[in-house]
Amino acid sequence: MELLTSRQLVQAWTRLNRQQGRTIGFVPTMGALHEGHLSLVRRAVAENDLVVASIFVNPTQFGPNEDFNRYPREPERDAQMLQQAGCHALFLPQVEDIYPAGSSTRVTVSDVTEQLCGLFRPGHFQGVATVVAILFNLVMPTRAYFGKKDYQQWVVIRRMVTDLAMDLEIIGMETVRESDGMALSSRNRYLTPQQRQQALAISRGLRAALAAYQSGCREGHELVGLVMKTLEQAGIDRVDYAALHQIDSLAPAVRADAPSVLLVAAHVGGVRLIDNLELTTP
Amino acid sequence: MELLTSRQLVQAWTRLNRQQGRTIGFVPTMGALHEGHLSLVRRAVAENDLVVASIFVNPTQFGPNEDFNRYPREPERDAQMLQQAGCHALFLPQVEDIYPAGSSTRVTVSDVTEQLCGLFRPGHFQGVATVVAILFNLVMPTRAYFGKKDYQQWVVIRRMVTDLAMDLEIIGMETVRESDGMALSSRNRYLTPQQRQQALAISRGLRAALAAYQSGCREGHELVGLVMKTLEQAGIDRVDYAALHQIDSLAPAVRADAPSVLLVAAHVGGVRLIDNLELTTP
Repeated sequence: MELLTSRQLVQAWTRLNRQQGRTIGFVPTMGALHEGHLSLVRRAVAENDLVVASIFVNPTQFGPNEDFNRYPREPERDAQMLQQAGCHALFLPQVEDIYPAGSSTRVTVSDVTEQLCGLFRPGHFQGVATVVAILFNLVMPTRAYFGKKDYQQWVVIRRMVTDLAMDLEIIGMETVRESDGMALSSRNRYLTPQQRQQALAISRGLRAALAAYQSGCREGHELVGLVMKTLEQAGIDRVDYAALHQIDSLAPAVRADAPSVLLVAAHVGGVRLIDNLELTTP
Repeated sequence: MELLTSRQLVQAWTRLNRQQGRTIGFVPTMGALHEGHLSLVRRAVAENDLVVASIFVNPTQFGPNEDFNRYPREPERDAQMLQQAGCHALFLPQVEDIYPAGSSTRVTVSDVTEQLCGLFRPGHFQGVATVVAILFNLVMPTRAYFGKKDYQQWVVIRRMVTDLAMDLEIIGMETVRESDGMALSSRNRYLTPQQRQQALAISRGLRAALAAYQSGCREGHELVGLVMKTLEQAGIDRVDYAALHQIDSLAPAVRADAPSVLLVAAHVGGVRLIDNLELTTP
């Protein structure tokens, strides 16, 4: 696996491979990789001539009181995992490769960001959209892969790609879960075993709502109520949101008649966790 | 000359030609072409395998009380001029080719836009940066050509290209002037002969300042004072700004010791005109 440690190196790699007509799959990450990231890499390997991943803990998407400093950084372990998954190149930029001196350009997606995580993490999606735009311009991927665990992020990035006419395909992949239902997240490692047990209520609540949906329930307040009840019973008392939205536009939904998604953000032991489940009949 | 009248057509044209390894020169315009635009096209023809121009009167860069509706539109005449200048393709989008339904992404360049025209035309440079980013993604040019008459725009676009790591070169070209010094502008046609005579004071004031600079004057207030005096004498009483700035950063300058540019925006007969002159010794 090739290590690309600067803006210049990744641009040279991209130009060479695009000139030779190779398709490039791209998996942008913040490192601290888990099976969710690797599922993206494997899919990218299957669909493209070459796969490049990036690891960059992007400062502009963290709020002042968030976990930027303590976010786990373990590039050697990550690099090994990527290589084993068949990744061809790893872009490991420094901050100044992404934000050069005097950098003052930001990409903002409105509407879809003015709800859910956008309300609780001001500036987060501007940071995400900006860094992803920069990474796309550096890597020029044919296809880029995102996990649908960060559902709103996935919608924001598709919106940006359409609006700015970026010439690539966005692929969203299902959330990878542990056998007990817990969604994989780099932030799970912050949890003590006891907190992890408590946090399980998030996926359990979503599954309870899905079961009700599959039994015919379409009322948003009932589906959301099932999630909230499960969180309460587990003693999770800080819930940023539990809400029903339409899948494509992410517009708020009163009923789940159209294809919908239930989204949750809640705090357990000082760790902010998100999860979601699309409501579909089996 | 090929006419590309939709997002899909320009994308197909771009992909085909990039795949075949051709270099593409791009001249984005709002139409109502004059010799200034054509100088960009000719330079682009000389430096690239293919040249594409665009004509799009971009609604997002006009303020609510500006001249979007009356901005001159004459695509047949423009197309003929482009063809004669050697242009290979003309992208003539509809609004929905640039801003698809639900479009909500904007590109913002801060700092350099928070002065000069940015203060008098709120939102203008966000509209410019957004449309230029979209056009660049559609056309994927090797080089894009801008007139330095819109000096701040030229600086904003270079900043955006650097910050977002866009893979193209920005070429700025000198302002084309009539024999009496008047900078060419699509908005000059709004002027009556009398107003045009009055507006001549803008370029005359800039030339007076340049002459003083070439005689050794470096004091910003003196150089700006020469411009202001010329405008006053001509009866131009609505001056948005006349100011000395550094050329690359466009930071305000007290003295013209470093390479500098004098910029003016003034209203004549209800028409807002801009002009500038870089201060260099011959």
